[in-house]
Amino acid sequence: MSYDLCAIGNALVDILVSTDDAFLKTNAVTKGSMTLVDDGRSKELYQKAGAAVEMASGGSAANTLAGLSSLGGTSAFMGKVGLDEFGKIFTHDLQAQNVHFTTPPSRDLATGRCLILVTPDAQRSMNTFLGAAVEFGPDDVDATLVQQASITYLEGYLFDKPTAQAAFRKAAKLVHDAERRLALTLSDGFCVARHRDAFLDLVSGEVDILFANEDELKSLYQTQDLKAALAAVRGHTEIAVVTRGAKGAVIATKEQLYDIPAHPVSSVIDTTGAGDLYAAGFLYGLTQGKTLSEAGRIGAIAASEVISHYGPRPQKKLRDLI
Amino acid sequence: MSYDLCAIGNALVDILVSTDDAFLKTNAVTKGSMTLVDDGRSKELYQKAGAAVEMASGGSAANTLAGLSSLGGTSAFMGKVGLDEFGKIFTHDLQAQNVHFTTPPSRDLATGRCLILVTPDAQRSMNTFLGAAVEFGPDDVDATLVQQASITYLEGYLFDKPTAQAAFRKAAKLVHDAERRLALTLSDGFCVARHRDAFLDLVSGEVDILFANEDELKSLYQTQDLKAALAAVRGHTEIAVVTRGAKGAVIATKEQLYDIPAHPVSSVIDTTGAGDLYAAGFLYGLTQGKTLSEAGRIGAIAASEVISHYGPRPQKKLRDLI
Repeated sequence: MSYDLCAIGNALVDILVSTDDAFLKTNAVTKGSMTLVDDGRSKELYQKAGAAVEMASGGSAANTLAGLSSLGGTSAFMGKVGLDEFGKIFTHDLQAQNVHFTTPPSRDLATGRCLILVTPDAQRSMNTFLGAAVEFGPDDVDATLVQQASITYLEGYLFDKPTAQAAFRKAAKLVHDAERRLALTLSDGFCVARHRDAFLDLVSGEVDILFANEDELKSLYQTQDLKAALAAVRGHTEIAVVTRGAKGAVIATKEQLYDIPAHPVSSVIDTTGAGDLYAAGFLYGLTQGKTLSEAGRIGAIAASEVISHYGPRPQKKLRDLI
Repeated sequence: MSYDLCAIGNALVDILVSTDDAFLKTNAVTKGSMTLVDDGRSKELYQKAGAAVEMASGGSAANTLAGLSSLGGTSAFMGKVGLDEFGKIFTHDLQAQNVHFTTPPSRDLATGRCLILVTPDAQRSMNTFLGAAVEFGPDDVDATLVQQASITYLEGYLFDKPTAQAAFRKAAKLVHDAERRLALTLSDGFCVARHRDAFLDLVSGEVDILFANEDELKSLYQTQDLKAALAAVRGHTEIAVVTRGAKGAVIATKEQLYDIPAHPVSSVIDTTGAGDLYAAGFLYGLTQGKTLSEAGRIGAIAASEVISHYGPRPQKKLRDLI
């Protein structure tokens, strides 16, 4: 069986808590970013933060695959859960969407969780305790899946662990030896800053399709100027997809820049998953042979659905929306 | 410390899955009802049903307390969780809302879960595996809490287990010896049918404030005629609150009937928790010395919030809405 997309990412369950800016300030939470936390800090913030609004299967790349499935694409996921309730639910939710997922779970660590503090402006500040996800390593990369997928998609958040970086290098080699395409999402500006050299090596040497938001791209090229960052990335990758929130997205190739407007929404509730779903729509379009502009438009529609409700995965069948 | 409300209910985590009427039919799920299922059936339905849209702390009476807290009321909960992730989250979510909750968890059974199949008409069909909740018994009733609460509220779903019924009888005696008021929600028409005699005994002999929807009340008095059911209940309880979905609610006392219109909502997403939140608003009004009509109006507002999104508990601060 071959798939449109094969993804490597952190297997996480999201716990959403409604909060306010004062809470973020008092507890030194960096607004709008993903911060890695240890078990103690995770528990402390969770204790203080108030009641969970909702829990849902999450993880950036896994959200992208859920979106791709909802559009009609086929995919496989690699990532590490624990042997607990959250791991069972995460696994079920992917498999129920026909995403192939057979990475062996950790026998020692609990499923990772992301405490997402949602402020009234719909921004989310993520505090991730990786748990079992840190154990993902080269041995968990299923060579057959990677060799047969049209595109293999790597979640930048995994750069925080050396074993996962080694898994990325293994996957990248498999992809290119099989003459397939490699995609990467930068995931987070601070994550990029922590591992800039490793990211630049990968982007310039291996990545065919790069996903980033404006901040992440600027962080990668250490500039405050989007034009300068776009010019740099066009020398590095075949396609760069740069999301800009309400301003839409820019798709950059060596030859051309495409401006893609955001798809209108009546009310933005929670931006969790917006970038992940943009990637889902874009990659679906690409694997279906659409033009870059058309693929960008599908990305915008997919992103608009997920920001109109709490939770990081689509609640409507995306195929019906495009 | 004394509380406005003390509640005994099933401690459950809800797992919401979007589905369609064909799935309900194929799998012989009774639409709009709560069905008790064993572990095997719970797992089978979950496997077949598709991806979870969301998970959230639930349980009918616990939802009511979350609503009461959101309005500014004080409360305590009694119910049984397990020693797993779901139990921790359920406990956290109540305690974070300042609900007193110290019932010892089960050491043997997993936290109960309710698989809620939501159809496109926003109706929910619930499949409950009680898990640890079945262990709740008379020893778990904290006499001090019951004696000091203005109102003690019993969740009818617990009638399915004899030990819980015994706990109800113990609580009822404590309430009346302390000259406090006893409230009961009938919970489900089929649950009423399974235990009609025991319900009638309790309603006619002990209950001061009864909550029921139209179907449940008709089931209790074995009539298809709402007027006849209302006449019967007015002979049994001081106050009966009968919810009727989009038609609003009727509040019946021995002296008078009050028609309370539903509070308008722009779009009904998921009716999970509607009755629970109506009870929250009504009981909050009552404990604040409001008139029955005013209390009914607060109930209608609280219910309107929870049906406008997925999940059984309010996402907005209800105090700001009234």
